[in-house]
Amino acid sequence: MDYTVVALDAMGGDNAPSEMVKGAVDAVNARNDIKVILVGKEDIINKELSEYTYNKEQVQIKNATEVIETAEHPVAAIKRKKDSSMVVGLHLVKDGAAEAFVSAGNSGALLTGGLGIVGRIRGIERAPFGTLFPVKSGVALLADSGANVDCRPSHLVQFAKMGSIYMEKVVGIKNPRVAIVNVGAEEEKGNALVKETMPLLKECEDINFIGSIEARNIPNGDADVIICDGFVGNVILKLYEGLASTLVSVIKGGLMSTLKSKIGAALALPALKKTLKAFDASEYGGAPLLGLKGLVVKTHGSAKAGEVRNTIFQCVTFKEQRINELIRDYIVIDKKKED
Amino acid sequence: MDYTVVALDAMGGDNAPSEMVKGAVDAVNARNDIKVILVGKEDIINKELSEYTYNKEQVQIKNATEVIETAEHPVAAIKRKKDSSMVVGLHLVKDGAAEAFVSAGNSGALLTGGLGIVGRIRGIERAPFGTLFPVKSGVALLADSGANVDCRPSHLVQFAKMGSIYMEKVVGIKNPRVAIVNVGAEEEKGNALVKETMPLLKECEDINFIGSIEARNIPNGDADVIICDGFVGNVILKLYEGLASTLVSVIKGGLMSTLKSKIGAALALPALKKTLKAFDASEYGGAPLLGLKGLVVKTHGSAKAGEVRNTIFQCVTFKEQRINELIRDYIVIDKKKED
Repeated sequence: MDYTVVALDAMGGDNAPSEMVKGAVDAVNARNDIKVILVGKEDIINKELSEYTYNKEQVQIKNATEVIETAEHPVAAIKRKKDSSMVVGLHLVKDGAAEAFVSAGNSGALLTGGLGIVGRIRGIERAPFGTLFPVKSGVALLADSGANVDCRPSHLVQFAKMGSIYMEKVVGIKNPRVAIVNVGAEEEKGNALVKETMPLLKECEDINFIGSIEARNIPNGDADVIICDGFVGNVILKLYEGLASTLVSVIKGGLMSTLKSKIGAALALPALKKTLKAFDASEYGGAPLLGLKGLVVKTHGSAKAGEVRNTIFQCVTFKEQRINELIRDYIVIDKKKED
Repeated sequence: MDYTVVALDAMGGDNAPSEMVKGAVDAVNARNDIKVILVGKEDIINKELSEYTYNKEQVQIKNATEVIETAEHPVAAIKRKKDSSMVVGLHLVKDGAAEAFVSAGNSGALLTGGLGIVGRIRGIERAPFGTLFPVKSGVALLADSGANVDCRPSHLVQFAKMGSIYMEKVVGIKNPRVAIVNVGAEEEKGNALVKETMPLLKECEDINFIGSIEARNIPNGDADVIICDGFVGNVILKLYEGLASTLVSVIKGGLMSTLKSKIGAALALPALKKTLKAFDASEYGGAPLLGLKGLVVKTHGSAKAGEVRNTIFQCVTFKEQRINELIRDYIVIDKKKED
């Protein structure tokens, strides 16, 4: 059997190790083409694993004695904790022992470690987090959702190209519409970064660039790949999560405010829950760091087994679709054009 | 009677002139301390006015033969259309004939005209739009919500001070909590602008600066005055509007999906509508350009009579609380400290 080998940080995230281990078991029980290497404290992982039944050949443990905490300084943590689950897991990718590394731990450390240990594809200037999130019409990709808070125009152009490949090959949207986040649709609108990036994106013949997108049109799904610097991207993603959860709580409060509405709520709730589930960001798996030599994927800090399992599946698609090879080819063509 | 005189752009916005004129009439019929000068095409305004009963002394018309359209280039429009309702209305403020000018028209033109015709208070480097928006705990102020897409640290510090005055004096929140939009709460987080602004804000003894706010915590109301550059502010405000409306439509769709949920929806709808109304940004009136020598207020392009009326009331509070004098004093003290 030809497995896709995914290393999983068993110690990272709010619900580690139990939900990480459960997600790994769920993944291998659902598909026989996946092998998961659980990285972390061997005794703890073994104890968790003892609760499940699964094909032993598909799950392996790689011992790592340290854990990088969420609040730790990313650069210092990666430097000092050489035997942390994150550093050990990233080395598995670098050394070719795993095809992907998935972690729900410290995002900054994963970024630092991903760049330092796995490394960028030659020609890629910055690696953005590419995050899938729910929109009315389905799903859209945000790049950069938080890795690079200060960007140059050439970075955004690469985000657009890599995001376009990802959306077409992993999510399966043909000729995805790429748009840049802006404060208006008119030609003269934008901050310095957007104004400088706009003509460069217009010149890209190999992406379907549709121009500016105002933030108000993002939830409606007016673009498939949404490009911005990591500061703006983080604001968009976090506000999305915060506003959705606040609105749901406000709506629940409203439904509970009168006896009549309480009865109504009881009748309506199952259908409502189903609808809101489609707007739950955690359903869409993890965010890969696009443009690295191997696959490094961040899942939500609050990820539970279901999201972990989905993220592992996503890694298989990423590998099968040869995303990194496509990105590499893309950049090589670009560089040749410049010469 | 000592009136507060508010000039209103009768020709600006999607629902002009009818909703503008109706809003003006509603305002003077509700309060006898307001006089509204309707600025625009006299014959059209007169025709609209003929439908209402009101105290003639409280409504005046100032003829202006031109109209600046929404899609026009702001700088060119203000320069060329000297007899537009916007330019004429701004001159009323500059000349002291009105204490405020309210418009639902072209935001960029209002900003250009406000700066060029009314002018900034001496010492104010940039004038931000200060927009009130709904949060779970009530209302918060966003500055800058879109006037200055590229900012320097000193601009953000002034936004914080002016926003703090506005929130305390106009909205009535004692010692308002001021926070800067950031990608995390930790000390080392932020893009270059935020990192440079942070120590300056910490030094401000006269505001209640509470540090960073992540976008996810904005809807919950974790700060009263939210500071950022106009690009990020515009993204926040527009995404707020877009996501709220998309979620409401998704929820409605969910409620209509089964017969049981349809019955539930019918019972729950009145309470739900009331709750969601509290989350409707248009309830909170207009966004003043803070730091000008006179009061210039932008209302939503889609403003209807109710919002126009609320914005006119807001102008009265702004005048009564002597906001511009407070801002002027603040800046003078600041400048003295520097010497």
